[in-house]
Amino acid sequence: MEFQPTPALIASGNEKAIARAISWVENQHPKAQDLLTQLSGNSVVVGVTGPPGAGKSSLVNALVLHWSALGKKTAIVAVDPSSPFNFGSLLGDRLRMPGLFLHENVYIRSVSARGSLGGLSTAIIEIIDVLKHAPFDFIVVETVGVGQSEIEIAGIADTTVVVSVPESGDDVQTLKSGIMEIADVFVVNKSDRDGAETFANHLRQLAHSTATDSWEKPVIGTVATSGQGIQELSDSIFKHSQIATKQQRYVQLQTEKVIKLIQREQLKKIPAEEIADLIRKELLETGTCNIHRIAQYYQRNT
Amino acid sequence: MEFQPTPALIASGNEKAIARAISWVENQHPKAQDLLTQLSGNSVVVGVTGPPGAGKSSLVNALVLHWSALGKKTAIVAVDPSSPFNFGSLLGDRLRMPGLFLHENVYIRSVSARGSLGGLSTAIIEIIDVLKHAPFDFIVVETVGVGQSEIEIAGIADTTVVVSVPESGDDVQTLKSGIMEIADVFVVNKSDRDGAETFANHLRQLAHSTATDSWEKPVIGTVATSGQGIQELSDSIFKHSQIATKQQRYVQLQTEKVIKLIQREQLKKIPAEEIADLIRKELLETGTCNIHRIAQYYQRNT
Repeated sequence: MEFQPTPALIASGNEKAIARAISWVENQHPKAQDLLTQLSGNSVVVGVTGPPGAGKSSLVNALVLHWSALGKKTAIVAVDPSSPFNFGSLLGDRLRMPGLFLHENVYIRSVSARGSLGGLSTAIIEIIDVLKHAPFDFIVVETVGVGQSEIEIAGIADTTVVVSVPESGDDVQTLKSGIMEIADVFVVNKSDRDGAETFANHLRQLAHSTATDSWEKPVIGTVATSGQGIQELSDSIFKHSQIATKQQRYVQLQTEKVIKLIQREQLKKIPAEEIADLIRKELLETGTCNIHRIAQYYQRNT
Repeated sequence: MEFQPTPALIASGNEKAIARAISWVENQHPKAQDLLTQLSGNSVVVGVTGPPGAGKSSLVNALVLHWSALGKKTAIVAVDPSSPFNFGSLLGDRLRMPGLFLHENVYIRSVSARGSLGGLSTAIIEIIDVLKHAPFDFIVVETVGVGQSEIEIAGIADTTVVVSVPESGDDVQTLKSGIMEIADVFVVNKSDRDGAETFANHLRQLAHSTATDSWEKPVIGTVATSGQGIQELSDSIFKHSQIATKQQRYVQLQTEKVIKLIQREQLKKIPAEEIADLIRKELLETGTCNIHRIAQYYQRNT
């Protein structure tokens, strides 16, 4: 009989049960949904995103080792958005830092975005809920900040950390134009480099101008390789996570997650192959194709 | 009685009918769906994307004036992704180049991503189909290449042009990591600047390594302000658009559009407010909330 990842086994930290439950979720095993309805947990979920080369992996490693020294357990979910993108850098970085793999307080799982029906985030929502039921204090979701993954992460994490580096001249501009809204904490990594202080101050001005009564986004200079700023980052994450679940936004994020889960099930019932055949036929016969007519037909008949 | 944008009026190029039909689509007017099922058209749909500052608007203006001189009509859809992002630059650029507004062969429509239930692309799919029915030879969809809009545009346009500039040192890296896959044509704009030739050659190597039997992505140096390279760009767009609709990928893209349209209608039926109330209640009573249980309930009951 197939090994069963029960809620009790997951809660005890059994690695085989955790790994199997995640596999169930990834492969949409028939028993995955029933398992998920039995889980609960209150780990702090930290999203870490930023452009390639900002040093996200080194920063996550430093943070996790810091927590581990305090006796805290962390699960790292490294999102490898292999489709439509192809970075591969997450696993590459990890291979250059094998220490974490063997560390007893750390569990690492790579997740491929490829092939997850219903998008990156639906599978990750479920994986995080498995890990929350396990005895982890922190769950770090690390994504490369290109494309939609960085927006999705903000909908999943309690606290989103945006990592950037001083030398990228465009960055304040880029941050202004979107990332600003998803960040709860800013990190200027490699902050021993030229221009770091000026860059951080620009960010602080932006952060100040968007501050609310309950939170002004802190801007923290770090040097991941030496550990500088890691304690301050850890404090900020913890402080933010404490207020995050009390905010109106939290209910909204949970609602959006429920809607995504419902949509994924609905998507399974849409006959994509049949629709493609219809389109192919109409294109062949008439040289054009009215997709609205086809959509309307299936809206009425599903 | 309310003015009716009929298919015949739209096909005749009546600006009021076109504008009204687009408003219907944007506001999900009750008659919008029926109108859309009566439309058809074979304009070339060109997506133009790239980072802020790459000169997309100038390039689009040069291209459109080039086509206009040949007697071709163009509609420009400027996507202003005001939420969750906030660029505002598209309209800014346009205001600095007011010439196009008055040009008889050019129609410009700004589209806000904000508030369009079901995402940016569903509304744009419909707007483009209105414009395709009107007598435009080309429809240019211009987006800022940050966030998910650049990925979505590749699913909507027949031909996607990715614009970059030589001075951005990260660009080859960035292009490697995703944009490469969505581009059909590369433009190195401001190609009179230092490093343009080296940068273009790097891109050509990448393009060559991903060439298929039917298409090797061309890399075209342009100087939008002087018109250099615009003829070559126009030729490449036309050449690509001729093969685009004949490819297997085209059927797949049309299928994805139909699925998006169906999903938007399904989304309307999900009682988001009721779900939020349930979540709020469960959080208050137990301090936690199992979203999978709630999702399962609504999957069974909708």
